[in-house]
Amino acid sequence: MENPSLTAPPAVREGISTSGLVRNWPQNCWWVAAHGSEITDRPVLRWVLETPVALYRKTNGDPVALHNRCPHRWAPLSMGEVAGDDLVCPYHGSQFAPDGRCVKVPTQNSAPSSLQVRSYPAIERYGFIWVWTGSVDLADPELIPTDLAFLSDPKWHTVWGYKPVNGNYMQIKENVLDLTHFAFLHKKSLGITGWDRPPAVEVTEARVTFRQLFHMAPLPPVYAIPAGKPPGKPINRDNWGTLVSPAVNYGAVDMHDPNPGPNGLERFSMRIVHLTTPVSISRTHYFWAFARDHGEPYDYEAMRAGADVVFGEDIAMVEATQAMAQCSIDQEHAVEVSVTADRAAIEGRRKVAALVAAEQALLKQKAS
Amino acid sequence: MENPSLTAPPAVREGISTSGLVRNWPQNCWWVAAHGSEITDRPVLRWVLETPVALYRKTNGDPVALHNRCPHRWAPLSMGEVAGDDLVCPYHGSQFAPDGRCVKVPTQNSAPSSLQVRSYPAIERYGFIWVWTGSVDLADPELIPTDLAFLSDPKWHTVWGYKPVNGNYMQIKENVLDLTHFAFLHKKSLGITGWDRPPAVEVTEARVTFRQLFHMAPLPPVYAIPAGKPPGKPINRDNWGTLVSPAVNYGAVDMHDPNPGPNGLERFSMRIVHLTTPVSISRTHYFWAFARDHGEPYDYEAMRAGADVVFGEDIAMVEATQAMAQCSIDQEHAVEVSVTADRAAIEGRRKVAALVAAEQALLKQKAS
Amino acid sequence: MENPSLTAPPAVREGISTSGLVRNWPQNCWWVAAHGSEITDRPVLRWVLETPVALYRKTNGDPVALHNRCPHRWAPLSMGEVAGDDLVCPYHGSQFAPDGRCVKVPTQNSAPSSLQVRSYPAIERYGFIWVWTGSVDLADPELIPTDLAFLSDPKWHTVWGYKPVNGNYMQIKENVLDLTHFAFLHKKSLGITGWDRPPAVEVTEARVTFRQLFHMAPLPPVYAIPAGKPPGKPINRDNWGTLVSPAVNYGAVDMHDPNPGPNGLERFSMRIVHLTTPVSISRTHYFWAFARDHGEPYDYEAMRAGADVVFGEDIAMVEATQAMAQCSIDQEHAVEVSVTADRAAIEGRRKVAALVAAEQALLKQKAS
Repeated sequence: MENPSLTAPPAVREGISTSGLVRNWPQNCWWVAAHGSEITDRPVLRWVLETPVALYRKTNGDPVALHNRCPHRWAPLSMGEVAGDDLVCPYHGSQFAPDGRCVKVPTQNSAPSSLQVRSYPAIERYGFIWVWTGSVDLADPELIPTDLAFLSDPKWHTVWGYKPVNGNYMQIKENVLDLTHFAFLHKKSLGITGWDRPPAVEVTEARVTFRQLFHMAPLPPVYAIPAGKPPGKPINRDNWGTLVSPAVNYGAVDMHDPNPGPNGLERFSMRIVHLTTPVSISRTHYFWAFARDHGEPYDYEAMRAGADVVFGEDIAMVEATQAMAQCSIDQEHAVEVSVTADRAAIEGRRKVAALVAAEQALLKQKAS
Repeated sequence: MENPSLTAPPAVREGISTSGLVRNWPQNCWWVAAHGSEITDRPVLRWVLETPVALYRKTNGDPVALHNRCPHRWAPLSMGEVAGDDLVCPYHGSQFAPDGRCVKVPTQNSAPSSLQVRSYPAIERYGFIWVWTGSVDLADPELIPTDLAFLSDPKWHTVWGYKPVNGNYMQIKENVLDLTHFAFLHKKSLGITGWDRPPAVEVTEARVTFRQLFHMAPLPPVYAIPAGKPPGKPINRDNWGTLVSPAVNYGAVDMHDPNPGPNGLERFSMRIVHLTTPVSISRTHYFWAFARDHGEPYDYEAMRAGADVVFGEDIAMVEATQAMAQCSIDQEHAVEVSVTADRAAIEGRRKVAALVAAEQALLKQKAS
Repeated sequence: MENPSLTAPPAVREGISTSGLVRNWPQNCWWVAAHGSEITDRPVLRWVLETPVALYRKTNGDPVALHNRCPHRWAPLSMGEVAGDDLVCPYHGSQFAPDGRCVKVPTQNSAPSSLQVRSYPAIERYGFIWVWTGSVDLADPELIPTDLAFLSDPKWHTVWGYKPVNGNYMQIKENVLDLTHFAFLHKKSLGITGWDRPPAVEVTEARVTFRQLFHMAPLPPVYAIPAGKPPGKPINRDNWGTLVSPAVNYGAVDMHDPNPGPNGLERFSMRIVHLTTPVSISRTHYFWAFARDHGEPYDYEAMRAGADVVFGEDIAMVEATQAMAQCSIDQEHAVEVSVTADRAAIEGRRKVAALVAAEQALLKQKAS
């Protein structure tokens, strides 16, 4: 039975209309829904691809992801309590097992089999909780990108953070595929002014990678200080980044000092991971992680604070850009002009669009 | 003459779109617009069924309800002043009589007869102001439910309150027709855990009533304390509730202690009234009253505060439920699965839907 | 290339839907975008006719108005920096000349010619910055109304102010064409109660003017005090106002005291200018200026504060009126009934509507 008084466009609560917009993400993908430290035996609600998901842990610690809407009277299960491995609805006490079956209705002897919520595959890996809202038969855990293994490697020292963004997730992915914005958007925070040429771009079947080699270039202070080197010292810097999946990008700075001196570092690196999960067309969960293989003492709070400033600048720009696109009288005719340095971002956009199109084709094929 | 610059969907101000939704209330019904103590010779604005109503009192104390939009330049009459029995527009001073006729335009000798606002039948009864926005010829004062007479009976001690709800009014009505949620939603506030069977349901032409008899059941503390009895004492409890009209539900707890002791109460009761008036599809005025026929001293503030906590839990759930329904990508296909305990709520939903359908049929018949 | 993830209705950011509404302003008009003191070498964003405009000054002090959306990746140029006479995009550093041409892309040798923003004619006159978003070939500086020359005349002592209004600009223009609201809306702030007849109205091809002559009428305190005369003294008052263009209205009070006494003023005047620029259908920039040719000492702060109170009353009414129009269930059928005193406002509405219609006809002719 459908409750006719309760259907309204999702745009309403999002504070943003999606009329005329096309969802530009695939469902068949592992998306990060949370950092592992956020998920306990007290359920939390996380919106993922316009889907409300209740996340909690079983007694053995495994994460569970259930659709958050109780099919009885649509109460949010995330307001309920965990009982053993099950989740109990906060309204009338219907109890759901991790596979989504209702195992108890308090006022009757057995639960109707139709009283069932969708359960989503959920895996904890590299510190994050990954969920799959697409076809369950395609949810292969091996599809979680292995690139991020360094996040669990004790050689690397890592911080993570989260920011909600009022922007489409592809804007963030494109932003991190074109670092020529460093000299302008991050002029004060990063102080890296030498990025004045388009990077090389490599496109494979699986991914899009850009790479910029800075030969004996002055070491920016932001990289020099953790490495214990004088700012401005000429060293070789290999700065690259890659789109791994619709859910994952990461960037790398691999540095080589040919004249390290007696106790100096010869090779040292950084990694920065961008885990972007659509909430809706116009909102995104932005989880990030920042790792260094050098530079004791590891002042994690300072690392986190520094990253926060830079991401804050990125997000302010993404949000302002989206506003410019959405509010103008001529928005329908707004053109976008690309330059040479946009190549990686454009290839990334194409790759994700192709995945979305393939998934749509698969769905149509199934339906027919 | 119509001002083309000023027409926009009602959804805008409500903060909620109504596109695709169906209004699920009848116009031909007495709806509560205010508590009597709110209405004085200073007009107030109250939205009722998507209609802005200016409410004030005549010199003889009778309430007046006028459409709040001055037909001259659409100023809100509720920002104006009462002059005798009339209401004066705050913008250019047009003066309206209680029947809605304009009796004065300050800059000319006589008012155009077209300068007229709609006047709604308004009656003060049982402490509340009831208005009728439907066909005036059907506005029979006898249709105000007489069930609520106890609110004016000195035998009963009553408090009232008000809460705005971001939810459809039928969600509130259904909530109070199924009290099996007590054990979960009000676990802490009410501490009534024994409600684990579906109640009996009686459907008549006029109303839907549920009834649960608790035979020699432990008296919950929330009922025991005002009655001066030890919590947990076994007594008989008759807990019932009824849908009286689209605007009115009330619930009752009639208690019988077969072993009252020398000065103890043998029979004692409570009533709780739910007066729910749609503001729009997704917002509701929730007036409530709570009455006891026992339990001096009557600490009205404490009675009010206790009810506030419980209603707060109900409303949080109604609002969360509506959000679950409105935001999800699959909302159009969301199903609702009912269980045995839902019978009264479902019958209530049907009864109101039938009234709405009958009214629509009547309107169509008039139009043809 | 169009970015499909970034198109959404303008209503979204405005917080107001424009579905079903008609834009009721002409593009071919000089509209005030700012007061001159607001514009420096640090760019500011101002929305004008649903268009985001970045405003800054060249080294010679001339104002520049560029469309605020960088055509590269839609960053707001107003977040960038001025370099000489050019504006540098805050995201990737594209540099735009005052005529809108991109003169530099940092990562390549030359800029694509398609990388260009629209530049709007902008002129500083009478203290304000006027912009033209219509056809550039029609942007004749002589079309800026010369009526406002007194704003630059040292004989007059002037203050200015600004208020954002959640209302259509025509509501403000109509409000200042019918001052019979003084006795009601400004009863306390102005204390002018004698305005109880419709004014005379003169309509010419260019403008609409109302005029009310008060023969030997008691001087309201608000006019008496700056003139050093006793409140209530009978003098002649000529109170008139005029719609000069869709962007400009102003009002005048010319006073004549036939019995001024030895050092008293015989003739003294006030002017009040209303510069209303649509942000969108439902929002308006309201710049105002208030000038006196008499009444030392000129306590400009007090003049500004007094005007603020009165404008605050006007705006509260315009905003409440718009809300009344937009929220009611019967809004589509809401009628507007006019009275004799509305004649100037109605003529003003017609004149602007005719300009809009003529412009639309011109656009259609060009298109065919």
